[in-house]
Amino acid sequence: MTTTGKQLFTTLAADGTLTVAVEDVAFDAPTGNQVLVKMEAAPINPSDLAILVGGADVENAEYTRGKFVARMPKAANAAAKARHGLKLPAGNEGAGTVVEAGDSDAAQALIGQRVSCVPGNAYSQYCLADAAMCLPLGDHTAEDGASAFVNPMTALGFVENAKADGQDAILHTVGASNLGQMLTRICQEDGIELVNVVRKGEHVDLLRGIGAAHVVNSSDDDFMDQLTGAIRETGAFYGFDPVGGGKHVDRSFRAMEQVAAEQMTEFSRYGSTQQKRMFIYGRLDTSPTILTPSYGFGWTLSGWLLFPFLQSVGRETVARMQQRVSDNLTTTFASTYKSRVSLEDMLTKDAVMDYRTMKTGEKYLVTPWS
Amino acid sequence: MTTTGKQLFTTLAADGTLTVAVEDVAFDAPTGNQVLVKMEAAPINPSDLAILVGGADVENAEYTRGKFVARMPKAANAAAKARHGLKLPAGNEGAGTVVEAGDSDAAQALIGQRVSCVPGNAYSQYCLADAAMCLPLGDHTAEDGASAFVNPMTALGFVENAKADGQDAILHTVGASNLGQMLTRICQEDGIELVNVVRKGEHVDLLRGIGAAHVVNSSDDDFMDQLTGAIRETGAFYGFDPVGGGKHVDRSFRAMEQVAAEQMTEFSRYGSTQQKRMFIYGRLDTSPTILTPSYGFGWTLSGWLLFPFLQSVGRETVARMQQRVSDNLTTTFASTYKSRVSLEDMLTKDAVMDYRTMKTGEKYLVTPWS
Repeated sequence: MTTTGKQLFTTLAADGTLTVAVEDVAFDAPTGNQVLVKMEAAPINPSDLAILVGGADVENAEYTRGKFVARMPKAANAAAKARHGLKLPAGNEGAGTVVEAGDSDAAQALIGQRVSCVPGNAYSQYCLADAAMCLPLGDHTAEDGASAFVNPMTALGFVENAKADGQDAILHTVGASNLGQMLTRICQEDGIELVNVVRKGEHVDLLRGIGAAHVVNSSDDDFMDQLTGAIRETGAFYGFDPVGGGKHVDRSFRAMEQVAAEQMTEFSRYGSTQQKRMFIYGRLDTSPTILTPSYGFGWTLSGWLLFPFLQSVGRETVARMQQRVSDNLTTTFASTYKSRVSLEDMLTKDAVMDYRTMKTGEKYLVTPWS
Repeated sequence: MTTTGKQLFTTLAADGTLTVAVEDVAFDAPTGNQVLVKMEAAPINPSDLAILVGGADVENAEYTRGKFVARMPKAANAAAKARHGLKLPAGNEGAGTVVEAGDSDAAQALIGQRVSCVPGNAYSQYCLADAAMCLPLGDHTAEDGASAFVNPMTALGFVENAKADGQDAILHTVGASNLGQMLTRICQEDGIELVNVVRKGEHVDLLRGIGAAHVVNSSDDDFMDQLTGAIRETGAFYGFDPVGGGKHVDRSFRAMEQVAAEQMTEFSRYGSTQQKRMFIYGRLDTSPTILTPSYGFGWTLSGWLLFPFLQSVGRETVARMQQRVSDNLTTTFASTYKSRVSLEDMLTKDAVMDYRTMKTGEKYLVTPWS
């Protein structure tokens, strides 16, 4: 038996025309370890936006009900060559109720339960999801569980990574995001020192309000002094950055090196021997990353992505992380949303122009049956 | 008993005045494991130039016999704050004859022998060196042994590093340098595939002449095709770059990602899962490193420096590497020089203007008794 419902698709033609539209589709019956989830809520994360709108000119797009058509600038279109002509779903994660299940015991056990899931096509009324990646939500609402995967597992992943590398302090360059708030709470629980960088006074207050000890404001004139001070106090030579473009990483390395240089007894032409480590885990700014030659050769910068990380740590660790999320869904791992939109309403000009700016703490939630 | 002789010093004042001059100094008698080496030859490596001239305006400097005084531009002067007021020696390595030794058996055993050494003040008529780091040269000339440490151990270090990381192919972005030629020979001996990037047709010929299989010319219109072709053939997702500034690293990552993407069966919005690894081991270009968001998140870039690397691999590995250099000094590890200059002549305008450009294959050798 097939089920029909609405789903969002994003298609980039070779000529740079981006079409994002809601369509009626038929969903296959789940088999094996699959479940069919009637989706109730799905967040729009920065990691969804690349595929949803990318660098398209959404200001001058043509908007009709449940659809927009925009031009992708030449450079962005060339960079996206691999997806030309592909009609792609969007939405990494969400939550809903299992209405049908494949033969496996794990799948059958979920029938009738509300779960969070990671189907990759969450902007849809129905999704086929892997039972092994579903988190039963018990009495929690779909909104409570909609963001139970990407941000919680990423924030936990940072701490796992830091511990595996023998670190007891972390720098996070965008502290006030939903993810940043989760990381703040996790670090408190785990006794890891955390340096949060924010851009606004109200974000300093927000993080201090949830107990953050080291919050520095990049809008302040003495920002670099604040940053070196916090690194000096915590020993955070290890950090994560979701911005990517510009000098976020560079200034982090510079501040780390300044603290390391203070502790040197002798001048070295090659900089300090303190190893400085940064990870770029997002591209809120798609301009190039700029690294100045200001911190010697004792540094390493990597890209960081959730799914390869989860594969690298193995099933047992992932299960332990998921259990922790499940046990603390509305406390440590709580998310907040600015707006709730239907599938059609998420494709209006007002909505697109707003969520594509990715303002800290202003996340959208898609509710596909509203 | 003290020995007197001439030595070069480089001093940067807080106001940005850089003074590089030859002075008469008294050398203490060696103690313990030290030896006093009468220096006969010392190369001017890129790694020496930062301390020797840095970003100073040597074109408009004031030159007198055995001395020049130059202005350091404001940004470079601020970046070099840690050395303000310090009178520093220069010259990492060189070769000469041991004329006096400390009490230790290792030191005493070297008396009268010609050795290569790593004293850090090799632009000098005498140096105190650590016997443990001296390489006896047997019947070889001082010129044969002058560059027996920095380039050979760096090139061997790349191969050690690659093997430790399970790699059997390496990309080197400046293939025709003395170091690049050594690396070419080492990789042939060890069965490691090597992709050499050069900028001139004559450098292609030079490397092919010593048996290099994969040489690509960045001056050719189809350079990126050549580069991806060579990466496709060798599987070189692991490389070393002495340039640092600009897009050398970026284009290497882009070419690696293009090859990896060809092998993907399914589109991924996050790029390939192929891990791409680059190391910056020099700063021939001191402009910022530019990393575009063109190769997903599966990449890592690190600074690479010889001495921390040698410390990390331990004494036994270093001894094995040194033995290999000693056994193949005039073959695998042979260096060539463009000019030979005295301590005074290395401080003439003609010489400084020439060696500070760091042209590939045009190395200077300082002969402090000429």
